[in-house]
Amino acid sequence: MMDERTSPIQRKLRQIVCTSETRAGRMFDLVLLGLILFSVVIVMLESVASIRGDHSDAFLIVEWALTIIFTLEYLLRLWVEPRRWRFATSFFGVIDLLSILPAYLSLFLPGSHILLNIRILRLIRIFRILKLGRYIKEGRTLAMALQRSRYKITVFLVAIIVLVVLLGTLMYLVEGNANEDLDSIPRAVYWAIITMTTVGYGDIAPVTALGQFLASLVMILGYSILAVPTGIVTAEMTKTQGVAPDNPVCPGCAATTHLPGARFCHQCGSPLKDTGEEKG
Amino acid sequence: MMDERTSPIQRKLRQIVCTSETRAGRMFDLVLLGLILFSVVIVMLESVASIRGDHSDAFLIVEWALTIIFTLEYLLRLWVEPRRWRFATSFFGVIDLLSILPAYLSLFLPGSHILLNIRILRLIRIFRILKLGRYIKEGRTLAMALQRSRYKITVFLVAIIVLVVLLGTLMYLVEGNANEDLDSIPRAVYWAIITMTTVGYGDIAPVTALGQFLASLVMILGYSILAVPTGIVTAEMTKTQGVAPDNPVCPGCAATTHLPGARFCHQCGSPLKDTGEEKG
Amino acid sequence: MMDERTSPIQRKLRQIVCTSETRAGRMFDLVLLGLILFSVVIVMLESVASIRGDHSDAFLIVEWALTIIFTLEYLLRLWVEPRRWRFATSFFGVIDLLSILPAYLSLFLPGSHILLNIRILRLIRIFRILKLGRYIKEGRTLAMALQRSRYKITVFLVAIIVLVVLLGTLMYLVEGNANEDLDSIPRAVYWAIITMTTVGYGDIAPVTALGQFLASLVMILGYSILAVPTGIVTAEMTKTQGVAPDNPVCPGCAATTHLPGARFCHQCGSPLKDTGEEKG
Amino acid sequence: MMDERTSPIQRKLRQIVCTSETRAGRMFDLVLLGLILFSVVIVMLESVASIRGDHSDAFLIVEWALTIIFTLEYLLRLWVEPRRWRFATSFFGVIDLLSILPAYLSLFLPGSHILLNIRILRLIRIFRILKLGRYIKEGRTLAMALQRSRYKITVFLVAIIVLVVLLGTLMYLVEGNANEDLDSIPRAVYWAIITMTTVGYGDIAPVTALGQFLASLVMILGYSILAVPTGIVTAEMTKTQGVAPDNPVCPGCAATTHLPGARFCHQCGSPLKDTGEEKG
Repeated sequence: MMDERTSPIQRKLRQIVCTSETRAGRMFDLVLLGLILFSVVIVMLESVASIRGDHSDAFLIVEWALTIIFTLEYLLRLWVEPRRWRFATSFFGVIDLLSILPAYLSLFLPGSHILLNIRILRLIRIFRILKLGRYIKEGRTLAMALQRSRYKITVFLVAIIVLVVLLGTLMYLVEGNANEDLDSIPRAVYWAIITMTTVGYGDIAPVTALGQFLASLVMILGYSILAVPTGIVTAEMTKTQGVAPDNPVCPGCAATTHLPGARFCHQCGSPLKDTGEEKG
Repeated sequence: MMDERTSPIQRKLRQIVCTSETRAGRMFDLVLLGLILFSVVIVMLESVASIRGDHSDAFLIVEWALTIIFTLEYLLRLWVEPRRWRFATSFFGVIDLLSILPAYLSLFLPGSHILLNIRILRLIRIFRILKLGRYIKEGRTLAMALQRSRYKITVFLVAIIVLVVLLGTLMYLVEGNANEDLDSIPRAVYWAIITMTTVGYGDIAPVTALGQFLASLVMILGYSILAVPTGIVTAEMTKTQGVAPDNPVCPGCAATTHLPGARFCHQCGSPLKDTGEEKG
Repeated sequence: MMDERTSPIQRKLRQIVCTSETRAGRMFDLVLLGLILFSVVIVMLESVASIRGDHSDAFLIVEWALTIIFTLEYLLRLWVEPRRWRFATSFFGVIDLLSILPAYLSLFLPGSHILLNIRILRLIRIFRILKLGRYIKEGRTLAMALQRSRYKITVFLVAIIVLVVLLGTLMYLVEGNANEDLDSIPRAVYWAIITMTTVGYGDIAPVTALGQFLASLVMILGYSILAVPTGIVTAEMTKTQGVAPDNPVCPGCAATTHLPGARFCHQCGSPLKDTGEEKG
Repeated sequence: MMDERTSPIQRKLRQIVCTSETRAGRMFDLVLLGLILFSVVIVMLESVASIRGDHSDAFLIVEWALTIIFTLEYLLRLWVEPRRWRFATSFFGVIDLLSILPAYLSLFLPGSHILLNIRILRLIRIFRILKLGRYIKEGRTLAMALQRSRYKITVFLVAIIVLVVLLGTLMYLVEGNANEDLDSIPRAVYWAIITMTTVGYGDIAPVTALGQFLASLVMILGYSILAVPTGIVTAEMTKTQGVAPDNPVCPGCAATTHLPGARFCHQCGSPLKDTGEEKG
């Protein structure tokens, strides 16, 4: 972690800016999170015509003030970070840059300051203030379950796309002439998606008896299909949890399915953790 | 349970008011539940203009009668309870107080009697009349599964908030000018929430082709994401159940969370099954 | 099964009417199912004004013809059944009676023939034609999982009712004056149910900013809560399946968690099925 | 695979047309997929009146060009395939034929070219380009879980149909006179399906107090029932997975479905783990 290329003041600042272990570091993160949330709220409120009203100047000033603060913070991070390029190209580095660019872009391209809302992605830093370790671990479990399900989810999504195009085309054939809301296949496919996901806006709905019968089938189909992604993720998550990745292997009988926190093998009674901890 | 500070009559009343084991206690609880339900129905009906009509006096009298009954019941509980302060600050004690306060508050602040509906929380007492033990145990299993999922759920909720703000902003950029229902970012974020949760009121819906395409992506995304909280809770619940009810207690260290089929305690290594089977 | 109180012809007819093992029995059941479906379709179509039109006489004749057939069938069942009272008070016996009563009732009470749709319940007989055993077993597994979840589901339902009343009251306080669709607590509670179950008709929707913010919270809450009943049923179903009820106990080591169809204990290698089958 | 009935050039072409292992084969599949997607997009866009406009000739030419390409491709497949009849009657063979027939049919039956959208089914070939094995395996796991759930799903679907007819009839009795959207039983059943699947278009919604109360019950019922198919599929999928991938093969009888932690084969009683570990 310690790096010869950085001066003591850089290292001190780095502890405040990049970690949450010291009191100052936690304060810095809290203030930063407050500013990020405030910034997102400002961009959102500015888009409301009745709120913006005559205060467009005030909004402009606040937005630029926040942008300058975030720019300084970005430069500070670049300065204190020993491996600058690695930070600049990391996920958070790119997000930090994207969070200030739209403001400068709006000088040339009016309206692009809306993109400042990308700052909401910086909110992910919140996990650093809370007990970091737990959240990263849980996030990783979630991500792992999703990643291990990726083949099944791809199969499922292709099936959904094929199904939605076929059902939409069928609905267009049935209602195309009778219902002006379903007068093209793309709209009919849009309707099929709205129906199968059980969102059901109601802006497009079948009006003929045959169309409503077809819609009923699509709904019950969607209802049943809803069970599939849930089943995929749940089964993967149960598996991921049951056989936790860092599970120790029993030195006595090589059993691997131990309860989290087990200290003795439940098959042969051999001590478990010691060996595991020496290795880990 | 027995306490020297209470007289025999207090103890007798306590058995009726605070427990459900005796016939009188069960009757008291049943009558109380009936009054609570009746009270909630009265407050609800009074809010319907066509029902209130000319009977606002009648409603007022019934409400005050119920409030006086509940006030007397609250004072009775305070009197019979040996540890008064502990009851007054307990969950049920606070709910009982909050259930009568709005009535007295409405003397000074007209309209606040609507808050009397907080009485519905007293309905939770219903579990005392039914076989209490089972329900508390099951409720605890549910609560435990939810509590153990809290880190995963936090990660999930932050991800949802970030996603909803980004998608809402994107939708505002796409439809902001064409659709007067989507003329501000807060409304667009509200739309994103309606869509991702598959509620789909339809009061706000995209009208342009690009907007409907984006909406389709949001729907399929929401559909897939719906699987995640279900997966989290289910996996946790399967785990909580699998490692639960008729689990043997370790004779060495009294640990109770053993894997199904475990033959040795995973905490202290004592042989497990033999003892368990002799007792069972 | 064989009963001395019935004559050979009764026994013969009983085989046709009450079982599906012979060719004639299967034919009888198929024709009956067809008539039941036809009868339900007739009642449904008759309710459509544009279809009924001038044919109300025709509908009347068909309905009475079907009613007479079903009445004869009911009497036939009573005649061939050795234990008449037990059949008449059984689930299917009551359904069979309820399926013909409304027709006779409509002679005195016009309009009550709509209740003939209760005949749809007779559709459950369909499982007898298909391979009965499997379906009854699977239905029992489903029912068992639901029954074992009943305490958890009660806790969940009471929680939902309390939540829905509280959120509805809150919404009424927020939007009561601004939104004429939310002008009473019962309607606000109805809105809360529509929103939390993610049905989202859109006939009642918040219009103020604060109301929409509250609605967003209710939606995300509903979305998360949706996970709970799924988790309950799934966990119970996994358990019910994993440790199937008719699982043999190993004579060697008393282990009970065997794979369906296992013939040897996976813990000690003792032969398993033989013992299990002798007992079963 | 090698067949004496085909010439070397047929074999060479077969490698390109029917497999994805060579560079040329992968290119052929990629181009084909592009053409299929393009073809579906063309049919969809042509149905939009504002896009078709004056370009209906252009659309016609493109559609016929694509049809001729797909026809040639189909004839090529027939030629290179050693077992022609088996291919022609296989799932993909039938799909390939159905993908070109509607174009020729539209010469006699105008409008039938819409059916060309059946081409979307050819998209399933996409799995051949991606790493085939994994997807087929995962697809098979999904299919197996669904197939093993088929009895439970049938029970569930019959229950849903019965429930929906009963609830629809009940709603018709309650609202039939007051609500012109619910003026027939078929429409009321359609409403019940919309509500129970939580789609909730809002085109049909109860207006009376009693109707809204009934609707609330249907929603909460639908909400709870939603848990059942999810539970079925998840439990089946957990089982299918738990008893799957890296499972040891029994050296005695080659059975592969062993419980996690099994030490003896449950089919023949042979010791299991030792052999499994030596090989693994």
